[in-house]
Amino acid sequence: MLGRVNHVAIAVPDLAAATAAYRGTLGATVSAPQALPEHGVTVVFVELPNTKVELLEPLGADSPIAAFLEKNPSGGMHHICYEVADILAARDQLVQGGARVLGNGEPKIGAHGKPVLFLHPKDFFGTLIELEQV
Amino acid sequence: MLGRVNHVAIAVPDLAAATAAYRGTLGATVSAPQALPEHGVTVVFVELPNTKVELLEPLGADSPIAAFLEKNPSGGMHHICYEVADILAARDQLVQGGARVLGNGEPKIGAHGKPVLFLHPKDFFGTLIELEQV
Repeated sequence: MLGRVNHVAIAVPDLAAATAAYRGTLGATVSAPQALPEHGVTVVFVELPNTKVELLEPLGADSPIAAFLEKNPSGGMHHICYEVADILAARDQLVQGGARVLGNGEPKIGAHGKPVLFLHPKDFFGTLIELEQV
Repeated sequence: MLGRVNHVAIAVPDLAAATAAYRGTLGATVSAPQALPEHGVTVVFVELPNTKVELLEPLGADSPIAAFLEKNPSGGMHHICYEVADILAARDQLVQGGARVLGNGEPKIGAHGKPVLFLHPKDFFGTLIELEQV
């Protein structure tokens, strides 16, 4: 079911500082920041040859990464996103296998304009897994 | 400086159960377990089309992931490994940029038989970064 690793997401308290560290210290290519108010984050993409790392900073009062940053004030690895060919088929197979889908179980349109779902980290050993249909 | 994402490492308390979940529920290809006593972990590789996920279980009394699992008993994303062309040049550039290398600053031979270094997570917003020379 799992396809490519679409991205690894890292929550950070200060996107400008994190961008400077990835661009400067680590010598990576980092995109311009993109505010995604409907997702409660501002994001930059660190472009690697085979995948990307997304650096996320909270945006607005109800950011979905606010609680994570309260628990991890310096930041940390937040989730991993795998590509799937058919997100509804993947969801049905996962639910049948006993996994829990976050929210109401229906895909939402994610940061890349594609349907996404999140799986409960308790079902996958503490890792928040995002699935994105590509 | 950063090349491909070589792997994303996830620490788990029970490698057999995690293997079953990735192979069964998520439908991924997972390798046979490999004990690496010199690294204090047993590892399996989840093979994705563009990179891999390593699931790590502590092995022995002084496992480097024991403290992480004490703090995160269900498991969690532990580190991300980037490939570099020249690990000594990368290290020197990073140290010059103010980053701290863990241990004595000399590369060790990692789980793949290649020289590796770890960077201090406090310098990279809570993310433990491994560099591997390929």
